[in-house]
Amino acid sequence: MTEVAAARRSRITPEREAELYEAVLDLLREVGYDALTMDAVAARTRSSKATLYRQWGGKAELVAKAVRHNKPGGSLLGLDTGSLRGDLHALTLRSDDCEMEQNSALMRGLAMAIHGNPDLLKAFREHLIEPEMAEFRRILQRAIDRGEVRADNPATEFMVHMMVGAFAARTLIDEQPPTQRFLLSYIDAVVLPAFGVTG
Amino acid sequence: MTEVAAARRSRITPEREAELYEAVLDLLREVGYDALTMDAVAARTRSSKATLYRQWGGKAELVAKAVRHNKPGGSLLGLDTGSLRGDLHALTLRSDDCEMEQNSALMRGLAMAIHGNPDLLKAFREHLIEPEMAEFRRILQRAIDRGEVRADNPATEFMVHMMVGAFAARTLIDEQPPTQRFLLSYIDAVVLPAFGVTG
Repeated sequence: MTEVAAARRSRITPEREAELYEAVLDLLREVGYDALTMDAVAARTRSSKATLYRQWGGKAELVAKAVRHNKPGGSLLGLDTGSLRGDLHALTLRSDDCEMEQNSALMRGLAMAIHGNPDLLKAFREHLIEPEMAEFRRILQRAIDRGEVRADNPATEFMVHMMVGAFAARTLIDEQPPTQRFLLSYIDAVVLPAFGVTG
Repeated sequence: MTEVAAARRSRITPEREAELYEAVLDLLREVGYDALTMDAVAARTRSSKATLYRQWGGKAELVAKAVRHNKPGGSLLGLDTGSLRGDLHALTLRSDDCEMEQNSALMRGLAMAIHGNPDLLKAFREHLIEPEMAEFRRILQRAIDRGEVRADNPATEFMVHMMVGAFAARTLIDEQPPTQRFLLSYIDAVVLPAFGVTG
């Protein structure tokens, strides 16, 4: 096999990639992170372990990318409603309550797994937390550019803390998955006032 | 042994109770919740398992009460500085950074254990979350009574979500235990503006 053929063979179509991520999420829901093996992923997707390792490096990266792929609407790059409230509400409305509940169950399981797996924490930071924070920063920067939020507002460094808090506390205190209704109220009652945005 | 003698024998002095809770927390830090046994607590504290069960009902309750006992300053009932900002800052300043770091490590471990132990969740809600929420409600109610916060402010139902968010996100995003400095900034930048309190 020539090098060109080898390179071609290692390329994966977007459809195939999506199929693979779906299989990884199914397995995650079935057995959890710790019991999930690359062997099981290979068997379920009829791929070779060598391909999986070449393409994703390892289990932690594969799982983090599968979770990111599963996020509705992909990137927030295209979202621009013209107001901070509009952008944050649009963000919330991309996932319906059923998706949010499924996602919340998956994330709770993974949050537990992160505790004992530094690799998974690293992959999560790189592929999920950092991109999410960057998107929040873009939304905030636009609000600052529009003059809606003051550039020196001290809440700007706590945007993600506020939102993560809503999800974590909803699960822990209310023992319920976050709903659209809950999140929209929280954004209006906490996040916007912290940024000095009213109505 | 008469019934009176039995009742007397089952009573535990506050000093002995504190000693017991300390031993439980030590064991928790050493082996974690799942591996902690009532046998080990009995052996470490030279008490009988029967006494432990009679006094605390079970492992989950014993652990929740030990954690509550460990909280600095006990109740917030006595705290009243005359302003919402003062009360929330005083609350934060009761634990120094070292205590907060130790507490945060312990709580992270227990949050993981809660996932698989409904008993522990129940005991936590009863002995830790509910009393904490009641204390926040009292602080808020005083602010409302003083006219500092409007009674219909929608943030009042999210007080605990905001604070839990600060702790959870600090650990997850910043990979650092919450410090006094971080919490004081968060209170000033997020919590007070959400309640319409400035300066």
